[in-house]
Amino acid sequence: MSVTVVGSLAFDAVKTPFGSRDRMLGGAATHFSLAASFFDEVRPVGPVGDDFGPAELEVLHGRGIITDDIEHVPGGKTFFWAGEYTHNLNVRETLATDLNVFENFQPKLSPAAQDCDVLFLANIQPDLQFDVRRQCERARFVAMDSMNYWIESARESLERTIRAVDCVILNDEELEQLTGAPNTPSAAKELLGWGLKAVVCKNGKYGAALYSEDGFFAIPAYPLAEVIDPTGAGDSFAGGFVGYIAAQVDEPIGHDLLARAMAYGTALASFNVEEFGTERVARLTSDEITERVADLHRMTSFDLAPLTLRG
Amino acid sequence: MSVTVVGSLAFDAVKTPFGSRDRMLGGAATHFSLAASFFDEVRPVGPVGDDFGPAELEVLHGRGIITDDIEHVPGGKTFFWAGEYTHNLNVRETLATDLNVFENFQPKLSPAAQDCDVLFLANIQPDLQFDVRRQCERARFVAMDSMNYWIESARESLERTIRAVDCVILNDEELEQLTGAPNTPSAAKELLGWGLKAVVCKNGKYGAALYSEDGFFAIPAYPLAEVIDPTGAGDSFAGGFVGYIAAQVDEPIGHDLLARAMAYGTALASFNVEEFGTERVARLTSDEITERVADLHRMTSFDLAPLTLRG
Repeated sequence: MSVTVVGSLAFDAVKTPFGSRDRMLGGAATHFSLAASFFDEVRPVGPVGDDFGPAELEVLHGRGIITDDIEHVPGGKTFFWAGEYTHNLNVRETLATDLNVFENFQPKLSPAAQDCDVLFLANIQPDLQFDVRRQCERARFVAMDSMNYWIESARESLERTIRAVDCVILNDEELEQLTGAPNTPSAAKELLGWGLKAVVCKNGKYGAALYSEDGFFAIPAYPLAEVIDPTGAGDSFAGGFVGYIAAQVDEPIGHDLLARAMAYGTALASFNVEEFGTERVARLTSDEITERVADLHRMTSFDLAPLTLRG
Repeated sequence: MSVTVVGSLAFDAVKTPFGSRDRMLGGAATHFSLAASFFDEVRPVGPVGDDFGPAELEVLHGRGIITDDIEHVPGGKTFFWAGEYTHNLNVRETLATDLNVFENFQPKLSPAAQDCDVLFLANIQPDLQFDVRRQCERARFVAMDSMNYWIESARESLERTIRAVDCVILNDEELEQLTGAPNTPSAAKELLGWGLKAVVCKNGKYGAALYSEDGFFAIPAYPLAEVIDPTGAGDSFAGGFVGYIAAQVDEPIGHDLLARAMAYGTALASFNVEEFGTERVARLTSDEITERVADLHRMTSFDLAPLTLRG
């Protein structure tokens, strides 16, 4: 089985209260792929420029990621993002967004990428997401990200795309903005009515919630006394979540499977933020993931002890 | 066994996007007492004026709350708070705070109130909290609330009080402001070093987290598609949490008990916000609480299914 992800491969410049990097490997498809690589074969689809070289490919190959669908644009420069986190990482300011080769990106998937079992559409223009979704008709589960920019500027396209997938992974503000609902539970209910199997709400340092046809599930973020760089946490979450689903080939995709997938997404996101960029996840081990998911299980469990209440 | 709570009994005027009330029963001790009354005998301690009459007492008596320590100040007026919630309840603006009889409040506890098993110090001036804590030497568990105002204006008093209790119940911003730590896990670690048994972090619509000597536990808020009035949610949470602990007379107060108590706190807070002021909790039933805690258990459970990860 295999996972295809379409999205950005990038260089990031990031400054946080705890340090900075001038140029490091980043991008939604990169973070997603590294996280998902622990569960299944992953093919990222996206454009890079001449500056994307053997060192960057080596990070991906080091995790067994298949890079055949990374499109090298001769003479081009790779997507570049620069940002700074302030106020204890609670505020993120974008300092530069150079689309470069991403500006004219038209996803062309190889037959192998089209033949994926599970597809993730990272945050790109919704018409491109729709086009890719149509190229992967065989996929048994399709999830997508988006952002406030597309909700405001391409709502119709975005709604068409959402209606063609199984799951959206957004934050609470995006869910409310998208639906006009006053809170996340109402927003999720509205979106399930659009035909989605699942709505995942990312709540940053507070954790994440799942709304499916069969109920609600929520899990806290793993508690870390030191967060170094939140960049890519959402995509690592998506990689763990979607990757876990892809690996469960013998089980129908229902609420219980999705809940377990949330735990793996949460674990991968927590490792992502422990160091800059891809540094931590690139050298992560399976045992560390398994241990962290067990920790999360313990940290969310309580007994239903019998109790007689007073009237 | 019994619970004593010291704090405000009040009249509130509240406006939310979903309606308004010009004058309704409120106050931290009121919300706490109603929630805790499902678990144990509760004695609220606080001053009221001539305007606090049989109708208000009836709400408390209706839940078996012992009102002997509510101090009637002849010629006085009851504490009054007016506020408005905007932006889908995410922003709260205080329109009026008339301390009235609360201005010169000096807590005088009856022998029965002093003899409590468990004590909750709601959000009042920290020297008063300290004084009450000293009056209840026999209490086997003491928890307290506070707020940014006291952190800024009475830090030394507040720290002395915190060092004399077992548990603080604050929100994430307050915990970080109090300790200067960059995030909640670090703040909690610092506070456990002050000698606390437990640090509870209230995260509003995202839920709540517990940090104890023995670990971390977190639980989401119960998902509600309609929230009418958040006023008193934190005190209802504290009432459910502290009340549950008080009722477990045969069990040492350890991490597992505290985690279960978090679920009851979460359940009570969720009922509180379903209607204005005390309206929902005043007519709540034991079965509704038990059912909601079982729901929360289901909504936070996932299996640790065996899984072989890829390298």
